[in-house]
Amino acid sequence: MSTVINATQQYARDNLGRFQSELMDFLAIPSVSTESEHAPDMARAADWLADQLISVGAENVRVVPTAGHPVVYGEWLGAGPDARTILVYGHYDVVPADQADGWETNPFDPVERDGFLYARGASDDKGQLFTHVKALESYLRSSGSAPVNMKFFFEGEEELASPNLAPFLNENLDLLAADVCVISDTSMPTLEEPAILHSLRGMTYLEIHVTGPHDDLHSGFWGGAVHNPALALAEILSQLHNPDHSIAVPGFYDDVVALTDAERNEIEKTAISDEQALQSTGVPALWGEADFTIKERVTARPTLEINGIGSGWTGVGPKTIIPASAMAKVSCRLVGNQDPHKVFDLIDAYVTSIAPPSVSVRCELITTGEPALFSFDLPEMRAGVRAYEQGWGVTPMFTRGGGSIPVVADIARLMGIPVVMMGFGLDDDGLHGANERFGIENYKRGIATAIAFMDEISRLES
Amino acid sequence: MSTVINATQQYARDNLGRFQSELMDFLAIPSVSTESEHAPDMARAADWLADQLISVGAENVRVVPTAGHPVVYGEWLGAGPDARTILVYGHYDVVPADQADGWETNPFDPVERDGFLYARGASDDKGQLFTHVKALESYLRSSGSAPVNMKFFFEGEEELASPNLAPFLNENLDLLAADVCVISDTSMPTLEEPAILHSLRGMTYLEIHVTGPHDDLHSGFWGGAVHNPALALAEILSQLHNPDHSIAVPGFYDDVVALTDAERNEIEKTAISDEQALQSTGVPALWGEADFTIKERVTARPTLEINGIGSGWTGVGPKTIIPASAMAKVSCRLVGNQDPHKVFDLIDAYVTSIAPPSVSVRCELITTGEPALFSFDLPEMRAGVRAYEQGWGVTPMFTRGGGSIPVVADIARLMGIPVVMMGFGLDDDGLHGANERFGIENYKRGIATAIAFMDEISRLES
Repeated sequence: MSTVINATQQYARDNLGRFQSELMDFLAIPSVSTESEHAPDMARAADWLADQLISVGAENVRVVPTAGHPVVYGEWLGAGPDARTILVYGHYDVVPADQADGWETNPFDPVERDGFLYARGASDDKGQLFTHVKALESYLRSSGSAPVNMKFFFEGEEELASPNLAPFLNENLDLLAADVCVISDTSMPTLEEPAILHSLRGMTYLEIHVTGPHDDLHSGFWGGAVHNPALALAEILSQLHNPDHSIAVPGFYDDVVALTDAERNEIEKTAISDEQALQSTGVPALWGEADFTIKERVTARPTLEINGIGSGWTGVGPKTIIPASAMAKVSCRLVGNQDPHKVFDLIDAYVTSIAPPSVSVRCELITTGEPALFSFDLPEMRAGVRAYEQGWGVTPMFTRGGGSIPVVADIARLMGIPVVMMGFGLDDDGLHGANERFGIENYKRGIATAIAFMDEISRLES
Repeated sequence: MSTVINATQQYARDNLGRFQSELMDFLAIPSVSTESEHAPDMARAADWLADQLISVGAENVRVVPTAGHPVVYGEWLGAGPDARTILVYGHYDVVPADQADGWETNPFDPVERDGFLYARGASDDKGQLFTHVKALESYLRSSGSAPVNMKFFFEGEEELASPNLAPFLNENLDLLAADVCVISDTSMPTLEEPAILHSLRGMTYLEIHVTGPHDDLHSGFWGGAVHNPALALAEILSQLHNPDHSIAVPGFYDDVVALTDAERNEIEKTAISDEQALQSTGVPALWGEADFTIKERVTARPTLEINGIGSGWTGVGPKTIIPASAMAKVSCRLVGNQDPHKVFDLIDAYVTSIAPPSVSVRCELITTGEPALFSFDLPEMRAGVRAYEQGWGVTPMFTRGGGSIPVVADIARLMGIPVVMMGFGLDDDGLHGANERFGIENYKRGIATAIAFMDEISRLES
């Protein structure tokens, strides 16, 4: 086998220039999913990607309609039914970009400059997903085969929060069946500090509505005799945390999987110092659970944040009313194995229990997302480590993401397989900002790592 | 004297029809001070009112320019330097009115219907101020003289919160010098329950600003490690009241003049039942200081209300941010002898003392108003009582206003004279709403009471 993978890696190195020019063609298509005038571009990008899959040797390639933008699917099952199968997820849609927003060049006219490809979507996610396509091509063109089966599914609505992805997964569980999923849609601080993400937080997003009088009241006529809804809301919100900054909702932590020493050690490798946190945020002093480090608080602990509050008059000058109502947007970041709906129910029950009788209080669930947590002792995770060591040349760290990527939890939950999040981008690639870019070295090492991952997965004991 | 006053009252009764038609001419002028396109109407109303004062026998009549709309002044000093002088305050400006807002007839085309005159300003305040003008006319036309000197000053900016009134008072203290001020710009529940207002609350209006990070932060990146400004604001606001609903700001009650038993008995005469309060406001349960009745809470006790709060995202759907800042509008209703600036300083000091180090907190003073409290044992107040008994036919109650009328405190403070607030309107006259009206019976009894007040003031021992 070592001859095969060596030939495969050599093919990838030899063809990097063409791989780069193909990616630039892909980047030139303004596949902005969030703007309806780009609907034709979305269709064009899907077709282009399907053609790419066919050209590298994938079969059963199709552009699958959804209620929104289509999913592009393709597979190569030539390794046979006894071999393992890798499912590759990525997204071909991008967020809007306007040269006037600080871009040095047209965001949809890709250019190479100082070792980077500059274009919207270069890192998020066209460049990263393409590494896996080129990995399959390198195997098939260099040796006529590959050691694992490959299935690709690329969605066009990631930047829209994937509204049609869970239905697509549910309807295509047989088609997508695999042993492991790999996603390259994340990043690392520097080229020499690659990372595999093994945890993402989930979410429970709700609104708390407090209503009092049937209309705004004159504060000179009724002040002091009715419970001001803005005050009642403040009183409720102030009871959501304990004095030690932990969350006061009874039962909130019941399903939280405790951090192991190994996990805490891994997190410590990417520690954020107090100085870094103060400088990055601009706050006068830090806050949070004293028993956990900053990095643990923002990635491995569940949180409850107020995202917005509104009541009464907030314009210029005085207006002497008692507002009829007050509302807050509140969201929790959840960790394994918290259930977003159970968390909502716990908050709802707690808020109801502390709501004073002098106002009406109602909690409304806005949206949920499941957390995802994969042990980094899983064989597929260890295969990922070895793939980086061989393809990237550096042993990766395991990191936890503070945010949420719903598809990860959906795949884990619906398909029952681990998801290895092998990021190939850099933290300063400018995702969603001006001058987004993807390093040519990242692209090269990413393809090499994707090839090595196929090899490593094929070697796992069954 | 009883012959003179009888003749005067007879004259007023005989001329009620003409008095009414003159008032309707006044009401037909759309003197809306808050809308710049009505500036010519404001000038016309001022001139019309000045002409009226001249026509009833006032002298030294002038339309005095201010930085805004003019003040109309006139006097009759024929009672001589040894007689008492009554200063009449009123305002000739009105709030906007649009027939489309539910008016049955054009708001500036006055009509008589079912014993009421319907027009914008009928009760607030053109009809009420006119009673005193017609009282002087009745004296002068029936007997050629009056028992007291009279000074009238009518402003055109009451509906704009009287921005130029205190300067006008300050610059004209000699011109306006008087023994007592009478203001008819308030109301009573029914014709048989007239009231003299003897207390108005003052105000301290401020904003509390909480700032944390230099920009909104991604709650998935920093949640749990910084103090959410909306949470910090809620924590501060929740500490402004004690569990018994009294105000927690140290020193807040220090200057509050305790209610006497006589005052509490007087307040009890206009008690608001729990049922009435619940029905009027629509709240599920009442709230406030248990040691005080509803009526005491809303008129005789100081309050602290949140008028508005704002922070972060309050639009539709989720947005997962930690807001960079949060703000609240907070205002206190003050009673004698609280000082609005001292109250601000107390709140500022308290909020600063409870502000956590993890955010920055700042209080900003927006506006102040002095409270006003006149003992109902004052001879001028007793004169008011007798005036109602003779002119209205009913002994009035003494009531406290929950709101603020800045001119009252200004006159008391700058001129050192009591202000007798003899309201002639009805609570349901539709002030600032559609179909504002003034009862013809109210007008008639108001003129009779104004005449009787002149007589009673003239009889006070010096």
